[in-house]
Amino acid sequence: MINWAKIDRLAKDWVLEAGKRIKDTIDEELLIETKSDANDLVTNVDKETEQFFIHKINELDPTHKILGEEGFGDKVDSMDGVVWILDPIDGTMNFVHQKRNFAISLAVYENGVGKIGIIYDVMADDMYHVRPGEGAYLNDTKLRPLQNVPLSKAVIALNATWIVPNKRIDYTKLSPLVKEVRGIRSYGSAAIELAFVASGRLDGYITMRLSPWDYAAGKLLVEEVGGITSNLKGEPLSLLNKSSLFVGSPKIHEEILEKYLDSYEGI
Amino acid sequence: MINWAKIDRLAKDWVLEAGKRIKDTIDEELLIETKSDANDLVTNVDKETEQFFIHKINELDPTHKILGEEGFGDKVDSMDGVVWILDPIDGTMNFVHQKRNFAISLAVYENGVGKIGIIYDVMADDMYHVRPGEGAYLNDTKLRPLQNVPLSKAVIALNATWIVPNKRIDYTKLSPLVKEVRGIRSYGSAAIELAFVASGRLDGYITMRLSPWDYAAGKLLVEEVGGITSNLKGEPLSLLNKSSLFVGSPKIHEEILEKYLDSYEGI
Repeated sequence: MINWAKIDRLAKDWVLEAGKRIKDTIDEELLIETKSDANDLVTNVDKETEQFFIHKINELDPTHKILGEEGFGDKVDSMDGVVWILDPIDGTMNFVHQKRNFAISLAVYENGVGKIGIIYDVMADDMYHVRPGEGAYLNDTKLRPLQNVPLSKAVIALNATWIVPNKRIDYTKLSPLVKEVRGIRSYGSAAIELAFVASGRLDGYITMRLSPWDYAAGKLLVEEVGGITSNLKGEPLSLLNKSSLFVGSPKIHEEILEKYLDSYEGI
Repeated sequence: MINWAKIDRLAKDWVLEAGKRIKDTIDEELLIETKSDANDLVTNVDKETEQFFIHKINELDPTHKILGEEGFGDKVDSMDGVVWILDPIDGTMNFVHQKRNFAISLAVYENGVGKIGIIYDVMADDMYHVRPGEGAYLNDTKLRPLQNVPLSKAVIALNATWIVPNKRIDYTKLSPLVKEVRGIRSYGSAAIELAFVASGRLDGYITMRLSPWDYAAGKLLVEEVGGITSNLKGEPLSLLNKSSLFVGSPKIHEEILEKYLDSYEGI
């Protein structure tokens, strides 16, 4: 029988410790490399932070699997057993350019069922955390169930990238949505945008081209407060493969899915 | 002879005091009204904060003119003499929906020349301030001259509103810019976005439909660190009339102006 309360305490301690290391070195020069394209950045801090977590998790229990963005973890092809899903720095472009608005995203699943979700906005010192069934929190404050505002009063996160010609979605699909909602924002960190939906600061978030480490924790937070998470087809999010992402309060999710996304054909 | 150092100290004290009042009442229920359209919001806190400043400025010197967003100030039709330009809460939609990511923006001009600029991100407790010629600061840290990154490595603030069909700009003009830059962000507060340009977190910011109180302080901050401010035609920003806004480091400003904005015909 796994002691989830203990693992939760440890996971939070590690996240805070990793966050402190990042803050302590925030003014040091970064080694910046690119990955899949010129705007897909990775730094030495992403890598060191992932290795820090892998060391801790391996020490705790070497049978736990680790799916991490920077690839130092395991090759994970099933959600059997205990799987940690980690993005050491979500929003690396913000980390490099702004030294803020990035987050550590850490989730633990057991046989595909979410057990722990943590998103830590490092520079704001805001920890969003959830143990599914026991409430979602921002630091010590319990997050309230999402409100069902109408689309006309909704603030939605959507990057301009998805409404200019691109490889993932017919860019004219979402253009009318931009005009229908109250406001559009874009923060450049999926984890923070998911945490903002969970805490009611955004009413929805739509994006393409994410990986499980970007949303594994945020999914648990959003669902705990009654939000709906899916890909752009309305299907459950994959924890093993790349996916589009579409989250919101139930009414917003239903309305956008029916009006704007009913014939989306991507992943 | 006006004692600008004294006025600068007073202005900062007032901004901090107004910010404290806002923070102290952040969880109280708001009276929300709409202005020009259903998404142009104003609350009792916007109004009370403007009145707080007007009272203080009138006490200091009743000959000073005040141009404020909520209209409790003076009808200002010239920049002669000393003119205070105030947005008590820039980013009211964020204030209402997020209770963060809004700012007090306060500037003082004498015969059209900027003397003091202050942008206070209330919930982050970040004060960006400048006395032109004496350096721009974020809290106690002096801001560095802007770096001239190429467009391909630039992060630009641009709301999706301006790349879907709209009344202000041919929406196809800026679409290719979205693909050329490294990243696009949108925070929903012009003052904060200007402060982010001044502090190097963004390399540029483009928007339509602003008023002088949205940018009167940010203009001084951006110019102090070597940035260029203009409307979308490349003309100087008006301090008396509505305007589009286009700011950035010199190279970014020149490149975007030539490639994307050379036939812009709006204000």
